[in-house]
Amino acid sequence: MLLKSNIKDLKKILKAENMLFREEERYCYAQDSANIPEEYNIPDIVVFVETIEEVQRIVKYANAHEIPIVSRGAGTNMVGSCVCNKGGIVLNFSKMNKILEFNSDDMTMKVQPGVVLNDIKNLAESKGLFYPPDPSNYKVSTIGGSIAQSSGGAKSFKYGTTKDYILSLTVVLADGTIMRLGSGTIKDAVGYHLNQLIVGSEGTLAIVVEAELKLIPLPEDKAVITAYYDSIDSASIGVNGIIRERIFPATIDFMDKNSINTVESFYPSGLNTDKECMLLVEVDGFTSSIDTQTERVKKALSETGASEIIIVKDKEKQESIWTARRASYAATAKLAPDVISDDIIVPRTKLGDMVRGCKDICDKYKLKVCIVGHVGDGNIHPQIALNTENDEEFKRYTDAKSEIYALAVNLGGTISAEHGVGLEKMQYIDKILDENSIEAMRRIKTLFDPKGILNPGKIFKM
Amino acid sequence: MLLKSNIKDLKKILKAENMLFREEERYCYAQDSANIPEEYNIPDIVVFVETIEEVQRIVKYANAHEIPIVSRGAGTNMVGSCVCNKGGIVLNFSKMNKILEFNSDDMTMKVQPGVVLNDIKNLAESKGLFYPPDPSNYKVSTIGGSIAQSSGGAKSFKYGTTKDYILSLTVVLADGTIMRLGSGTIKDAVGYHLNQLIVGSEGTLAIVVEAELKLIPLPEDKAVITAYYDSIDSASIGVNGIIRERIFPATIDFMDKNSINTVESFYPSGLNTDKECMLLVEVDGFTSSIDTQTERVKKALSETGASEIIIVKDKEKQESIWTARRASYAATAKLAPDVISDDIIVPRTKLGDMVRGCKDICDKYKLKVCIVGHVGDGNIHPQIALNTENDEEFKRYTDAKSEIYALAVNLGGTISAEHGVGLEKMQYIDKILDENSIEAMRRIKTLFDPKGILNPGKIFKM
Repeated sequence: MLLKSNIKDLKKILKAENMLFREEERYCYAQDSANIPEEYNIPDIVVFVETIEEVQRIVKYANAHEIPIVSRGAGTNMVGSCVCNKGGIVLNFSKMNKILEFNSDDMTMKVQPGVVLNDIKNLAESKGLFYPPDPSNYKVSTIGGSIAQSSGGAKSFKYGTTKDYILSLTVVLADGTIMRLGSGTIKDAVGYHLNQLIVGSEGTLAIVVEAELKLIPLPEDKAVITAYYDSIDSASIGVNGIIRERIFPATIDFMDKNSINTVESFYPSGLNTDKECMLLVEVDGFTSSIDTQTERVKKALSETGASEIIIVKDKEKQESIWTARRASYAATAKLAPDVISDDIIVPRTKLGDMVRGCKDICDKYKLKVCIVGHVGDGNIHPQIALNTENDEEFKRYTDAKSEIYALAVNLGGTISAEHGVGLEKMQYIDKILDENSIEAMRRIKTLFDPKGILNPGKIFKM
Repeated sequence: MLLKSNIKDLKKILKAENMLFREEERYCYAQDSANIPEEYNIPDIVVFVETIEEVQRIVKYANAHEIPIVSRGAGTNMVGSCVCNKGGIVLNFSKMNKILEFNSDDMTMKVQPGVVLNDIKNLAESKGLFYPPDPSNYKVSTIGGSIAQSSGGAKSFKYGTTKDYILSLTVVLADGTIMRLGSGTIKDAVGYHLNQLIVGSEGTLAIVVEAELKLIPLPEDKAVITAYYDSIDSASIGVNGIIRERIFPATIDFMDKNSINTVESFYPSGLNTDKECMLLVEVDGFTSSIDTQTERVKKALSETGASEIIIVKDKEKQESIWTARRASYAATAKLAPDVISDDIIVPRTKLGDMVRGCKDICDKYKLKVCIVGHVGDGNIHPQIALNTENDEEFKRYTDAKSEIYALAVNLGGTISAEHGVGLEKMQYIDKILDENSIEAMRRIKTLFDPKGILNPGKIFKM
């Protein structure tokens, strides 16, 4: 809990309009998108930063007084990574939202952490360039959050995740020191990859205040292929069939029957509700290659038992297909007071086992689950609709979650592909990391943040 | 210097045939490809390891007795990273050269560190898959060395470097502990990216004993476009012209006039010796897209003043072009007793300034330089032919090198793109990294290797 004297001191560092004190204001920051009971997470104060120097001053003050700092962009995090759990300061980056440089010939962009991904994408595309990472919430989520969580998205299969597009980071350390990590060039073999250590560290090692991004040429054209399957295993074999045809789709996404039905109930999109699941494949590249790609995808799908294979070249129709796919979260949310979107990943050949196992576990615990996923990567998102305030139901949910994670680990997978660990998955990380690895992480944390003020209590126990 | 008792102890750990003691045998390991005077670098013993347990036993012994350990594969390193500089043990991985698993459906391969890159490439390609990193020496160099140095190669422009293809690493720490870093899945958001910290750490943090690699579908077809320019600046503008056409070539390589002439003197390949420089562009993808790509590249090149633009579709002719390009190192080596291939990188738009500046500096110091490079990345390799045993000439070389590095830094670049730092570039890293970053690296080094036994004296001073 901040003292009155702390508040008074902070008022000297920041403009009055950049500070939120009132409980009803602070309460808005007690949650991200993870549905963690908010009463424990209310920050003592929310401050909006406008410059790197302000960040430094606040961090130095917080470090001297051992006050926790949680950095936050749009608050779309799915694992409770950008909420307080020990009070303290929420550092809100939404006013540091400027694109500082865009060099289309070098294919680089320098941005502040509060820039919304959609703005990066749109500016890049205006010059025929492409920033591929596309978490479902890219229209509102910020690059700072993407860096903190190492975000992926539907296009990770072909294009990789946020870590593959970070050329350099400027960070403020816990003692207020500024460091630039990485050189900003396309390749860099000078010393340890500290920027890659910061990406995905969920704000626990340093606060990112600037990032230089790598862009690539924008593919000229794309097509979407949709298909239905009578069984999840056949769909999984279909995914491997696409690879065997030497096609490298930008996206191979998946919706199970429950997802399709739930979307059709609330956002009718013309999907076939009779089938067990649906694959949504997007291929991209030169216009002259699109027919080659769609025909081979079609061949791979029909040979593995798919029906209703449709090739969509019209851009508006493509968009409406993705809108239906993205609507599955909002639709599932209508089934119950809350929805929790989980995030697990297995080797692609274990996909059928994982999806079936996940459904069986949810059946056993009488939970409503809609499963979608980026199945090219082997990454699925079980979306579970429930009332988190119903203790008995919540207990069933946590039991099911443990079993789902155990299954993922047994199949050679892991418990977070692109959402991070945050508060939500902390208690499970010893299922996937051995004690030596966790201890190495703890020691790195202590090295960067000796007093433990940066996003404390996240990822692993100290 | 090892004591007789140490040798006796090591004999208990290892088979006799896996240990080299005699000076003439050890002398062979006193150099890698960096031309560092060998008298300081002779190991006390060279041991061949065959199992992870052997590595553990040796490392534990060395740690207890504070004996330096330098891991080594094929010894093709360009910066003195795999030679001793304080005596000790060379850990030779050439017998740990097995491909342990290859799962073509998951597109993954698990390998021991001594596997030669070419074997990885060939096995992948036999199933229509692709491991893209291709340092020039890929026919002999090992994956362990690639991981240690974060190797790139001609195809980095489109496909990234080694770090982008590492799913997990199994490492032995300085105290003999084994850790598995990363999950082996395509995406992984559980905890800090320790595997990315190890990649490029030049064997100073841990010893890699196993790696899981990510593969991608092999492009169906490719074409090579060659063109000549009357000025380096026009060639540089040509490179940007290709990007503006939204073409993403696998490779945009470069040879300057000296390189072309030197290749033609020793390995006649039919290159045009009258022009200032040459661009070699490789596009890949579906056969149906190749004409689109070659025509747009041709347009971009001809609009920026290129002449003799030739599109090569015949695979044998393509290979002979790359053979000529790769021959430039061997050809330059014939100009003097030694050749040193450097490695710098600048933002692509500064390429003309960098290449001209590099030539001017070498002219000023009367050094023979042949400049080649992966100019899509802004990465050039000035290959300097000299007699390193001629003190006066060597002084001119080191003076020139300092000026070349200073120019790279002034142009917003860095002093190593894909070779690493090793012994060779240590004294220059404070030109590119600030003291805070170097100190952070030192503290991470101490955390992983408190006694400093792993490849000591490399990258930065402790």
